[in-house]
Amino acid sequence: MYTRSDTAMTQKGIHTFEEIMSQPAVWQDTLGVFQARAADLQTFWEDGAFDEVIFTGCGSTHYLSLVGATLFQHLTGMPTRAYPASELVFYPPYRPDKKYLLVMVSRSGTTTETVEAARVFQEMGAGQSIGVGCDSDSTLMQLADFALVADSAREESVAQTRSFSSMLLLVQLLAAYLGGKGDASTLSAVPEAGEHLLTTYHEVARQLGEDRAIERFFFLGSHMRYGIACESMLKLKEMSLSYGEAFHVLEFRHGPMSMVNDQTLMIGLLGDNTYTHEAAVLQEMQARNAQVLAVANQHRLEWPNAITFGVDLPEWGRPVLYLPVLQLMAYYRALMNGQNPDQPQSLTAVVSLDNLR
Amino acid sequence: MYTRSDTAMTQKGIHTFEEIMSQPAVWQDTLGVFQARAADLQTFWEDGAFDEVIFTGCGSTHYLSLVGATLFQHLTGMPTRAYPASELVFYPPYRPDKKYLLVMVSRSGTTTETVEAARVFQEMGAGQSIGVGCDSDSTLMQLADFALVADSAREESVAQTRSFSSMLLLVQLLAAYLGGKGDASTLSAVPEAGEHLLTTYHEVARQLGEDRAIERFFFLGSHMRYGIACESMLKLKEMSLSYGEAFHVLEFRHGPMSMVNDQTLMIGLLGDNTYTHEAAVLQEMQARNAQVLAVANQHRLEWPNAITFGVDLPEWGRPVLYLPVLQLMAYYRALMNGQNPDQPQSLTAVVSLDNLR
Repeated sequence: MYTRSDTAMTQKGIHTFEEIMSQPAVWQDTLGVFQARAADLQTFWEDGAFDEVIFTGCGSTHYLSLVGATLFQHLTGMPTRAYPASELVFYPPYRPDKKYLLVMVSRSGTTTETVEAARVFQEMGAGQSIGVGCDSDSTLMQLADFALVADSAREESVAQTRSFSSMLLLVQLLAAYLGGKGDASTLSAVPEAGEHLLTTYHEVARQLGEDRAIERFFFLGSHMRYGIACESMLKLKEMSLSYGEAFHVLEFRHGPMSMVNDQTLMIGLLGDNTYTHEAAVLQEMQARNAQVLAVANQHRLEWPNAITFGVDLPEWGRPVLYLPVLQLMAYYRALMNGQNPDQPQSLTAVVSLDNLR
Repeated sequence: MYTRSDTAMTQKGIHTFEEIMSQPAVWQDTLGVFQARAADLQTFWEDGAFDEVIFTGCGSTHYLSLVGATLFQHLTGMPTRAYPASELVFYPPYRPDKKYLLVMVSRSGTTTETVEAARVFQEMGAGQSIGVGCDSDSTLMQLADFALVADSAREESVAQTRSFSSMLLLVQLLAAYLGGKGDASTLSAVPEAGEHLLTTYHEVARQLGEDRAIERFFFLGSHMRYGIACESMLKLKEMSLSYGEAFHVLEFRHGPMSMVNDQTLMIGLLGDNTYTHEAAVLQEMQARNAQVLAVANQHRLEWPNAITFGVDLPEWGRPVLYLPVLQLMAYYRALMNGQNPDQPQSLTAVVSLDNLR
């Protein structure tokens, strides 16, 4: 177990560290938040009779929207897409003959582009909205027709960690519940699995984060894991200013692999049915002298570095589990690079713009 | 005018150079290819009575699909999405109650994932397909229910340049024609505009490509320009092994901008209605000491580097015009980095896999 005293050596990043380590406890709380709203959500959904679903956000929450849209379409069968909020402001894609459900994700609930996207949606009478956030009193959660809010996931740090995973947990449950695949009780093992990951793989995260031989990080994930790969990349970039990119796993062979060298870490977020084909990409990059970190539910091949969940959870319940160790890796990389993970260089917690429209 | 003799100083990249410079002539030919197929295409589309449209490809042609799906939905109003071909193989998104149009894009027409995606689509009886490629005799074009093929755009080089832009021109016309917005005659000014760009901005491309002070390239584009930003990034990466990333313009403030330093070139692909808000992002990065290259139809602000088309073409006709100068920049960067653009390190022209399913 890691406690505050373990990081007393540095006050840099103390908030980020505690926010990462507190995720299992906050997830427990978040499961309760969802369960309390489940029956009302079902009614809202059935009354809505929506034709299409759109997820939106900015930065991290845009990547969360990519996970959400993929899961929602996969589990409910409803046509679902994700757009960065700015696209919905400048190029609203709504057809007059369709009724849309807009799922708006924002930690602060005040990001200009997301709030404007909500207003454009309302002004066009395009449908109804669900807000997913961490602040019940915020502009966006007040604008939403239905709100799912993990207030206990709020953070001091600029870079989102537990807020991201908690909002993601709400979105996973939203998709699965409306798709008839389960509810918060189905995911009751998630907090314990998170605790297990943070304890078991803390040293792996530290070692890779502090490995000066690594200068390029590539995050690969397919389907519901693509947005997770993007978010893990952004976390590393925001906190530590390191070179990181994210791709769909099999896309990596179509050009991006030209950037692999012997100072590369390939992080593969592997799925169940796709495991063999995705593992083959990692192995090819290993043959090109890249280091490899495989993240999967089960350990089937011999990897020098592997993070495995080993849980009996449906695949839709596992996206959050890919995050904690990679967040820790970004945290240690940031410290090694002389950055303060709590206050990354050049970034603010909320992007506010004047006169967007 | 640049001819073969101008590059006689180096045989490295001779094919790439000629393929880039020959684009205007090949585009002229491609406009004719489309016009000859237009009436049959209209019949195919009307008979199809499709519910949804999906674009697919791998690598460059996945990025082409992103442009295509955005344009197709924008111009026809039909719900349209883009997926990398591997996603359609592993996670087919087809509902039994819908009829889909699958638009499959592949230069060679033999890429394993795209061919498999076509086979899965057919086996599921999900609808009908259009193939867009550069080889009429290829597996994929033979599998397609309808084919649009720019045979004269074929290439010797590994990295796609004129094949990409010619297939993109076909896709632009496909979307606009079925959306009732115009046909090949509407784009008759495109070849001349391309010639103008290659002549006028050749030195800008050379100078930026050879600028050793630049170590990071960021390509920003919204809506139909996002996939163009991605492709321009991939071209630079494939040919020259330089650090390049692509983002939606306003997304850049939400984290990625932390990577901007005084050795950064920000390339902004600016649209018409979004110009002010997109230019503001470039200006912010200029204030952080980044160099800026603005690419737009009209020159409205004072940029140190700007590429302008200055054409009287609808916005849907202009995506191809963002490409040629950026391809040239990648070419010069490759030569400076000691790479051979015709045969980039570690890449093959076609990715072939065994036992994908």
